[in-house]
Amino acid sequence: MTTSFGPSYVRAIAPYVAGKPISEVAREFGLDEARIVKLASNENPLGMPESAKTAMAQAASELGRYPDANAFELKAALSAHYDVPADWITLGNGSNDILELAAHAFVEKDQSIVYSQYSFAVYALATQGLGARAIVVPAVKYGHDLDAMLAAIADDTRLVFVANPNNPTGTFIDGPTIEAFLSKVPREVAVVLDEAYTEYLSADKRYDSIAWVRRYPNLMVSRTFSKAFGLAGLRVGFAIAQPELTDLMNRLRQPFNVNTLAQAAAIAALNDKPFLRKSAELNAQGYRRLTEAFDKLGLEYVPSDGNFVLVRVGDDDSAGNCVNLELLKQGVIVRPVGSYGLPQWLRVTIGLPEENEAFIAALEKTLATA
Amino acid sequence: MTTSFGPSYVRAIAPYVAGKPISEVAREFGLDEARIVKLASNENPLGMPESAKTAMAQAASELGRYPDANAFELKAALSAHYDVPADWITLGNGSNDILELAAHAFVEKDQSIVYSQYSFAVYALATQGLGARAIVVPAVKYGHDLDAMLAAIADDTRLVFVANPNNPTGTFIDGPTIEAFLSKVPREVAVVLDEAYTEYLSADKRYDSIAWVRRYPNLMVSRTFSKAFGLAGLRVGFAIAQPELTDLMNRLRQPFNVNTLAQAAAIAALNDKPFLRKSAELNAQGYRRLTEAFDKLGLEYVPSDGNFVLVRVGDDDSAGNCVNLELLKQGVIVRPVGSYGLPQWLRVTIGLPEENEAFIAALEKTLATA
Repeated sequence: MTTSFGPSYVRAIAPYVAGKPISEVAREFGLDEARIVKLASNENPLGMPESAKTAMAQAASELGRYPDANAFELKAALSAHYDVPADWITLGNGSNDILELAAHAFVEKDQSIVYSQYSFAVYALATQGLGARAIVVPAVKYGHDLDAMLAAIADDTRLVFVANPNNPTGTFIDGPTIEAFLSKVPREVAVVLDEAYTEYLSADKRYDSIAWVRRYPNLMVSRTFSKAFGLAGLRVGFAIAQPELTDLMNRLRQPFNVNTLAQAAAIAALNDKPFLRKSAELNAQGYRRLTEAFDKLGLEYVPSDGNFVLVRVGDDDSAGNCVNLELLKQGVIVRPVGSYGLPQWLRVTIGLPEENEAFIAALEKTLATA
Repeated sequence: MTTSFGPSYVRAIAPYVAGKPISEVAREFGLDEARIVKLASNENPLGMPESAKTAMAQAASELGRYPDANAFELKAALSAHYDVPADWITLGNGSNDILELAAHAFVEKDQSIVYSQYSFAVYALATQGLGARAIVVPAVKYGHDLDAMLAAIADDTRLVFVANPNNPTGTFIDGPTIEAFLSKVPREVAVVLDEAYTEYLSADKRYDSIAWVRRYPNLMVSRTFSKAFGLAGLRVGFAIAQPELTDLMNRLRQPFNVNTLAQAAAIAALNDKPFLRKSAELNAQGYRRLTEAFDKLGLEYVPSDGNFVLVRVGDDDSAGNCVNLELLKQGVIVRPVGSYGLPQWLRVTIGLPEENEAFIAALEKTLATA
């Protein structure tokens, strides 16, 4: 007998495949954990800032207690930092939680969600998890085509996801283009602008999305502490939107979704400007080194404004997985992106200088023997 | 213009109201945080075990990395401890996450979920969040009426929540009664047996629910590290079920839902038998003290097998809130349960001996002047 628990749309979901943890690769390939280089999950290679470690240690005495469900202090810090009222802020267990909550709060079964081809996998997962309809708009040069996304909005569309910079491609849309898009989206359609990598933008590319939140009641900006802020292991993300959207998120949010240590560490990281600056500088330097190496190897890559680069490692659809396997054998973990429809490509996180060199050496060796 | 984002069933949800944090009560009532006694959230008054603190400190070096999405080591520890395969285990960001995932994975809009009157608030919230139909079965003596719950299962019922012991009432159903119920539930209806408080059961009341999981493919047992294990602030819960149900949960689970420190601390806490024993003994002793005091004051209470007691503090429907306010003024935080339809009652967590005494003194003072 085959029973079939659960809605058909849940049974149809292919679960998210995370980057392999170092310990797993060590087990699988018989390697020494200490010598493995992981450039697979767009983490900050500097790790967690010292300021956040100190704050976390101070908060560690009360872990038998539930976290503050309203995150009074973290919301106060975010409110001051971004100059928005505390009740415009939703906290999430990473921005993954924010994206899932937004889909769940704004959309129901059989309504539609618009997002771009080659955009973050969680948009598709959140859509599938609701039994909602995905309207996937073809990318242009691996990035969002906002005009086409606008045109694709249907009568039953309730949400549009826009990632800027986009993961896994690293593409960037300039501020005026996004604002022109926002001004044309119907007022009853929510827009989630996912800015997980915004702290890596160079000064000339920055734009003020919080000002747009003040202007557009249908806009929610999503951010994370998992990338430039260096807190991926603690899990904390947040969204800023006017109270109408925020209030809906709060009705669905699990009250204790953000743990005590994450709340404390995030306050410290938020205000650690030297750490953010150092992270951005290290990233810019690593980007130059990786792309020089790709140029030298004659490999196509997508210009990136994130902390990673998408690089095409071969001409046939087995290239991504084959090169990935050879890199794994040499103790270098990157991310194959066949599940994104990019089987010839790999996504490589920008690491410390020595990590970048290890990756480049392993890649050169792999391609030379291919 | 009133816009109305989101499904009507989301707009209708009243968000969960958490116990007031100590810092918030201190701010509101102008009290010294250090002198406030919090018996509001069924936490372990011993706090986090030392074994878990040590494990957490050792895991703190890699917090810039994402957690292990598959939680290899914690699942291995749970698998060994409960003698089930690792792929029968789902981890959650607290058992709240497990309960929400189960509803989402097994039920869709307009199908129904069965649960008892006066059972845990998250069952109602999870039902509402799906736009599903709640079949709320009247309680008997503040506890589950399993015969009536069985009879209430409708053609469109896909999930039954059973809490044992139940929160907020503390009622207990013996093992044979639960197993008789399980044997009669239709095979296509999932049962989530929520055992958040099971570690507090006295030896004579224990039963082997994991054996039932092996026998019933539609059973999922939910547990938490937030109560007896003392890790509420870190957020980790888990479910045990056969692969068919577990696989569905995994399709919806956010891959990094359990943070790195929670995974490490849970392994240590799981195997810290002396801490669990001490917690249970302290709880049994506190239960005797509180119920003696209630008897002396002539207050009705519901016999409890959890780490809390539900006590009736007055004859009219303002009693719970009024007595609660007087207790707050004296720096004692307990939980009013008007939102559960129990406005004459308060739920009091069993604390350290000195915390129990502070509560009893404040309660006596309040009732004497009422």
